[in-house]
Amino acid sequence: MNAMIDLNADLGEGFGVWRLGDDLALLDVVTSANVACGFHAGDPLIIRRTCAAAVDRGVAVGAQVSYRDLAGFGRREMQVDPEELCAEVLYQVSAVDGIARAMGGMVSYVKPHGALYNRACWDVEQAEAVAAAVADYVPSAGRPLPVLTLPGSVLHEVAARYGVPTVSEAFADRAYTPSGTLVPRSEPGAVLHDPDEVAARAVRMARKGTVTAVDGTEVRIDARSVCVHGDTPGAVALAEAVRKALTGAGVTIEAFA
Amino acid sequence: MNAMIDLNADLGEGFGVWRLGDDLALLDVVTSANVACGFHAGDPLIIRRTCAAAVDRGVAVGAQVSYRDLAGFGRREMQVDPEELCAEVLYQVSAVDGIARAMGGMVSYVKPHGALYNRACWDVEQAEAVAAAVADYVPSAGRPLPVLTLPGSVLHEVAARYGVPTVSEAFADRAYTPSGTLVPRSEPGAVLHDPDEVAARAVRMARKGTVTAVDGTEVRIDARSVCVHGDTPGAVALAEAVRKALTGAGVTIEAFA
Amino acid sequence: MNAMIDLNADLGEGFGVWRLGDDLALLDVVTSANVACGFHAGDPLIIRRTCAAAVDRGVAVGAQVSYRDLAGFGRREMQVDPEELCAEVLYQVSAVDGIARAMGGMVSYVKPHGALYNRACWDVEQAEAVAAAVADYVPSAGRPLPVLTLPGSVLHEVAARYGVPTVSEAFADRAYTPSGTLVPRSEPGAVLHDPDEVAARAVRMARKGTVTAVDGTEVRIDARSVCVHGDTPGAVALAEAVRKALTGAGVTIEAFA
Amino acid sequence: MNAMIDLNADLGEGFGVWRLGDDLALLDVVTSANVACGFHAGDPLIIRRTCAAAVDRGVAVGAQVSYRDLAGFGRREMQVDPEELCAEVLYQVSAVDGIARAMGGMVSYVKPHGALYNRACWDVEQAEAVAAAVADYVPSAGRPLPVLTLPGSVLHEVAARYGVPTVSEAFADRAYTPSGTLVPRSEPGAVLHDPDEVAARAVRMARKGTVTAVDGTEVRIDARSVCVHGDTPGAVALAEAVRKALTGAGVTIEAFA
Repeated sequence: MNAMIDLNADLGEGFGVWRLGDDLALLDVVTSANVACGFHAGDPLIIRRTCAAAVDRGVAVGAQVSYRDLAGFGRREMQVDPEELCAEVLYQVSAVDGIARAMGGMVSYVKPHGALYNRACWDVEQAEAVAAAVADYVPSAGRPLPVLTLPGSVLHEVAARYGVPTVSEAFADRAYTPSGTLVPRSEPGAVLHDPDEVAARAVRMARKGTVTAVDGTEVRIDARSVCVHGDTPGAVALAEAVRKALTGAGVTIEAFA
Repeated sequence: MNAMIDLNADLGEGFGVWRLGDDLALLDVVTSANVACGFHAGDPLIIRRTCAAAVDRGVAVGAQVSYRDLAGFGRREMQVDPEELCAEVLYQVSAVDGIARAMGGMVSYVKPHGALYNRACWDVEQAEAVAAAVADYVPSAGRPLPVLTLPGSVLHEVAARYGVPTVSEAFADRAYTPSGTLVPRSEPGAVLHDPDEVAARAVRMARKGTVTAVDGTEVRIDARSVCVHGDTPGAVALAEAVRKALTGAGVTIEAFA
Repeated sequence: MNAMIDLNADLGEGFGVWRLGDDLALLDVVTSANVACGFHAGDPLIIRRTCAAAVDRGVAVGAQVSYRDLAGFGRREMQVDPEELCAEVLYQVSAVDGIARAMGGMVSYVKPHGALYNRACWDVEQAEAVAAAVADYVPSAGRPLPVLTLPGSVLHEVAARYGVPTVSEAFADRAYTPSGTLVPRSEPGAVLHDPDEVAARAVRMARKGTVTAVDGTEVRIDARSVCVHGDTPGAVALAEAVRKALTGAGVTIEAFA
Repeated sequence: MNAMIDLNADLGEGFGVWRLGDDLALLDVVTSANVACGFHAGDPLIIRRTCAAAVDRGVAVGAQVSYRDLAGFGRREMQVDPEELCAEVLYQVSAVDGIARAMGGMVSYVKPHGALYNRACWDVEQAEAVAAAVADYVPSAGRPLPVLTLPGSVLHEVAARYGVPTVSEAFADRAYTPSGTLVPRSEPGAVLHDPDEVAARAVRMARKGTVTAVDGTEVRIDARSVCVHGDTPGAVALAEAVRKALTGAGVTIEAFA
């Protein structure tokens, strides 16, 4: 029974004049900030301000690495050569870590974004590219940074081969199948919106390590972190409800990294 | 009388399928490689290969930071907000340093590119942005990295205020005015092409610290590094001629960083 | 005494997932839509939707051409070679016109955006580049498209040399100097926020062709169009107040193109 | 027996300072120029110069439309939403057509590039996006532009549904399977380099409409155009050999559009 959980959210996902979500409000809720690195969102100034605000609040900074795809926000699957993908991930982690350190913090984990996140869950070559990049960053970081991914993702085994630790995360506002995978967004009921229900699920994830699947069965879901979203209306209120419920249930909310 | 000189050149200035210059040939000539960081040229894979090749040959790696301008190759002056420019420079230095360290080396100096190079010679605000970024990178680098600039550039004094060292460079293939500045490229005779002449100028720069200006006067030019170009026909041959003449004249060719 | 005026606004200024302003609300207010062409904002899908919505409402479509600068939203002055700038403007006008025609409309005017707008008011070379591009588009458009600019802008004379008509615009929410130029945004009071005051100024611009300058003098300001902004809080309400006041004062609101 | 053939090549595939292939030499060989539109290569100035040079030589101008992927040169498969892809293709065709018309010519056909070319051969959704975009351009072009694709491609049937004509092309320097498809580049012998052999194959394609497959069988290959490449060493010589052999065999070399 897990009585400790991390809350993570995507942050710094603007670009130039554009913004997405209420970063400062979310930073008061989460313990880990997945900072966009410039490839799907996040210009250097936004990265800098996001890192500074995270460091100020004691929130852990993660590098949210992505395909090079500003126009598609990193949500489009791309057939990137693994050697190139590896260099791209290393570039992104390095860039954000340098900025985070200038702000008094550091990058303490890596989370793939969007289409790369999904693909690295099953595509061994792209998973290896991500893991190899994180391993390549050891001379700078002093240690391998943990990678945040789904329970059951192929990235777990691949990363282990590279000496890179992994951490599993769950989604309190997403429906699960009986086999423990996410119900695709295209299906009805895939995303939950009721704050009470979402908060209750987060508590069960943290305390019992389980989630109720769409068919009513209780499914084991081993997660050290719960992801909350920030780019939809009502997202901050939902995240606050989750945090409050967890605290009320005696769960310690603490970064994993 | 200076009997030691560094030879630097711009490298890794391709992008995607495109290439510019013969990087490997130049790496056999120079002691310092100004590696493009992705803003005017240089994708992560090219950066990685360039750093690896430089480390293999014992050539010092510098971060050649630029305005964000792939379409203009960083050669167009831009009115960038200093705070944003500072973040952009920090992003670029961090990205290349992380990759260089993964290849067994590290970034050991910074050189502004193109229009930013020229502007940072007189615009105090942009010079401060560059210097502040290099100072911001101290927590990662462990020390301030030296910045390569022109003798007499305002960047020297500005950088000193930020605790950032500077190094002066000269151009063996460029004509100088009697006051020690470069003759603008738009004027006839601004660029010299004769390998013997260029090599002889490099030797005088290294040994006597002087250059013959367009009016025949001998001008003092204090430079610890000489820049050779690689992106024009005959560039590699010119660079080789410079190196050979320097060695023949008993000048030690050694990186400054 | 002018009893007819056009209202124009910048539209379609999102990119990928990002949005700026309430385009549909503004399209119910204005008679001319300055559609971003992809260089400072506006991806092809946004351009298509913006053109379709404008055509649906009988709003004239203009191509809002810009420097190539997504990261700076086209607000940073760039030293672009005139020949290149001319090709860039032609590319943008062509792209948006083809999409507008597919939606049943067409581009009927051109407005430079941001830093290019300002620079084309005084820099003859960049003004010529814009005018030449519009003249170059005659074979496709069947006629020279008018260019929207400031009264007194050098673009008026330059465009005339290229056989390109120009139209002057005024800003109801901006303070004017006694000589009829805009008070720079950096000065206090440069931007007016009171809907009643802004609306009253718009009416005077339309009916009397004058504006009250910051020193209280009445300044002649010859404008066939008034620009309203859409990207700030309260912008739509301000635009609606302007439209209502104009209609109430018996001014006909009609596109110039 | 076909005694008339078109020769097409990819042109204008530089970006900013970068160049690829010898455009002017190729323009003296081919009858159709596939001009890069800015999404995988080709900035507005390069597009303008390429169109001008093609028009000067009476070479037909085609819009070589691509995924938005400068870093990958459009060679990486992307999961682009069909509605967005359609808008992107329309944007590209419009942009190049406007420039071509300013140079005294016009876009007279469309060819998908790289990964989009391959995917539109089998993916009905992406093929529909391309065909719909070309159909959308009818109001500007005055007629549907033909689309260049592989024999047997699904794009043929899809385009027919949109009233868009298609033209088939063959590759003289590529090996074919007995079923008439190209041997993948990853297999040995996929690309032929001997000018005499390549030229002889081009002649047979034009005169007999057949090609000798890797197993020696004679395969029917119905093509109105033959593609020659320009971006590899010896490419221009190969293209010239093909042209000379065709002319020598009495084949008329003429654009299809």
